[in-house]
Formats: sequence, structure tokens, C-alpha cells
Amino acid sequence: MSQFNTGLPSVRLLQGYVKDKQEVEVKLSTDEILVGRLLWQDVECLCLVDQDDRPTLVWRQSLVSLKPKA
Amino acid sequence: MSQFNTGLPSVRLLQGYVKDKQEVEVKLSTDEILVGRLLWQDVECLCLVDQDDRPTLVWRQSLVSLKPKA
Amino acid sequence: MSQFNTGLPSVRLLQGYVKDKQEVEVKLSTDEILVGRLLWQDVECLCLVDQDDRPTLVWRQSLVSLKPKA
Amino acid sequence: MSQFNTGLPSVRLLQGYVKDKQEVEVKLSTDEILVGRLLWQDVECLCLVDQDDRPTLVWRQSLVSLKPKA
Amino acid sequence: MSQFNTGLPSVRLLQGYVKDKQEVEVKLSTDEILVGRLLWQDVECLCLVDQDDRPTLVWRQSLVSLKPKA
Amino acid sequence: MSQFNTGLPSVRLLQGYVKDKQEVEVKLSTDEILVGRLLWQDVECLCLVDQDDRPTLVWRQSLVSLKPKA
Repeated sequence: MSQFNTGLPSVRLLQGYVKDKQEVEVKLSTDEILVGRLLWQDVECLCLVDQDDRPTLVWRQSLVSLKPKA
Repeated sequence: MSQFNTGLPSVRLLQGYVKDKQEVEVKLSTDEILVGRLLWQDVECLCLVDQDDRPTLVWRQSLVSLKPKA
Repeated sequence: MSQFNTGLPSVRLLQGYVKDKQEVEVKLSTDEILVGRLLWQDVECLCLVDQDDRPTLVWRQSLVSLKPKA
Repeated sequence: MSQFNTGLPSVRLLQGYVKDKQEVEVKLSTDEILVGRLLWQDVECLCLVDQDDRPTLVWRQSLVSLKPKA
Repeated sequence: MSQFNTGLPSVRLLQGYVKDKQEVEVKLSTDEILVGRLLWQDVECLCLVDQDDRPTLVWRQSLVSLKPKA
Repeated sequence: MSQFNTGLPSVRLLQGYVKDKQEVEVKLSTDEILVGRLLWQDVECLCLVDQDDRPTLVWRQSLVSLKPKA
């Protein structure tokens, strides 16, 4: 993403999860799944808080898929 | 994709699948195959609804191939 | 590919395969090989018809190598 | 990252770790985890000092996730 | 590579191999090694002729390393 | 790297290794480690001479990490 476009449906969907403190499952390019709460997003990264409450920076380039936790 | 070009044949093909509620098989860079219905697309992501009806964001950077489900 | 440059030797080579309905072997970043006929190409994707006649969109970002089928 | 934007939350978070000499765990696209202290960052790379005190350049393109060491 | 810069040392080195019909070993992101003669290069691809004389298009995005065959 | 910025700390660090004929260990996206001397760098590639003295072009896109050889 060269510029951070807050009008994009995908960015708005993530912003909704931030607002609702929604837990999400994030599949990364290393085939691992991170589960956590989305704190914020910027043009380079998402910031998740996982179960041991440490802020985890996830680079957008490694994102494969994301969905709300069941 | 730096700009969302709705005139592209590939974008139009996906838009047709959205309109027709066509189930698709999507191969991702992690070698997994997602099966679901395409809800919408933007310059960064596709949004699929899979069998357990959860909206799944799939980042375009992880897309390898896509075809209509047999 | 930021802009679709039809003057490029590689784009012209693929266009020749489209015209000649040439079967090709495409190696993808997931290490799989797709075999099929090239229907068309745009700046984001190639469209192949494989043996079960379903149009398969292949994202250029996942292309490793391509050669005419022996 | 085409331009180094020091205003980004993610860049500022990393700059805080540099200032605080915070040890971090960095997951890379090769699925390995580097543990070390963040010396500096630029638009292309992070520079970490690992346990054997050698400056290790890590290219941003290979970054998957980063969090403060527990 | 956004623009094809024939002044780059790496592009000139490859051009030398084309002129000298030098056999090269090319390591790709799929961890495979292609051995062949470099026919031409453009901003998107290299074109190699391998042992069974078929022109193989190799996308620059999949290139890891290249050296003259021993 | 869209433009070759010789002012970047990471580019300057590599230039220092070129000048000092410093042997380096380079981890690539294929998880392999190349050991060699850095001959030169441009916006697309690094050029290393490995133990059998053959110039090896390494594409920047495949670089994960680099450090001086112990």
C-alpha cells in the first residue's frame, strides 16, 4: 500500500475491528496464525495485542488473510 | 496494484463472480486453498465469505490463482 | 509491473502464445506447475484455460517461469 | 516503504525501542526468529545487534512480526 | 525494477553474458536452479534457453542469485 | 528500493564492507546462507565473490539479513 487510504473497504473493516475490540485470526506468509486484538493500523503495519498482552507489530507485506475469531 | 483499475479484464472477471455469487477456489502463497463466495474487492484485498459465513479478508499480495468452483 | 507495456519482449512473447493457442507450463511461487492455454493477459494477471476448461486467473506476482509445453 | 515516514506509528514504536535499548524478537519470512537490540532503522533495513555483538542488517521486505522480548 | 536501467552494473553484467552466450546457473525463489544460456532480458523477465532448447521466461521477481556456470 | 540512495545508513554500511573487503554472511529468502566478499552493490543487486571466485549476483528482493563473518 503506497498511501494509507482510509476510504478503502478493507481498511474500514479493520478500523471497525479496532473500534469493537474484536479478536481476530491473522494468517501470515510463514503459514502461522496470530490470534489477538487489533490495536491500530498504519500504512506499513497492524499492531495486535496477543494473549500475553505484548504489542506485536505485523508488517502488511506478510498478511495473507484475516477474519474475526469464531 | 497501485491504483484500482476497474477496466482490467481480471478485475472485471472478479466483479462478475461477485455479481453472480459464484463460489470460487483461491490458491494462496501459503499453498492453501480457500473456497468461498466473493463479497467484494478493493485495491488491497478480496473479501470472501467461507462455509462458516465469516467475512475473510484476503490480501491481493498473497493471491496465486483463482478459478470458479467446479 | 506498474504499467502494462505491450512493447516488452516478454509481453510480446506471451501475446504470441495467446494468438497461437500454444499450451504452456507455468511454474508458480508455490512450486506447482500449471499446464494450460493462455487466453489473455493484463497488468495484474494471466488467464489460462486448464484441462477441465475452467478459466484460471494467475496473478503475475506468483509467476516464477513459463515455457511452451514440450 | 517507498519513503521513510518518521510520523508513522510503527516507525515511532521502533524508534522508541531504539531509544530504550529494548531487546526485541523479530520473526522473518524464513520463519526464523532473531533476538537482539535495535540499533537503528532506515527505509530499507533495521540494524540489530545480536548476542554475539555483530551488527545484523535485516531487510524490511523480510519482516513478518516484531515484539518486545518477554 | 520500475524502469529498465541499462546503465546498472547488474544489467550490464547480464548483457555481457547474453553477448558471450555464457551458460549461467540461476537460483529461483522456489529454491530450484535453472541452468541455461541467457537470450535476452527486459524489465520484467529474463529469457533463458535450457538444455532442451525451449525459451524459458523467468520473472525477475523470482530471481534470488545468478552466476556463470563453472 | 526504487532509487539508489547512497545516503542511507544500510547502503553506507554495505559500501564500508566493499571498501574493507569484509567477508559477509548473507541469509536469502530461500533460507540459504551465502558467504563471500562484497564486490559492489546497485539498486537491484549485490555482487559477491564466493569461495570459488565466481561473481554471484544476488537480487536485493531476496535479501533477508546480512552480517560480517565471525
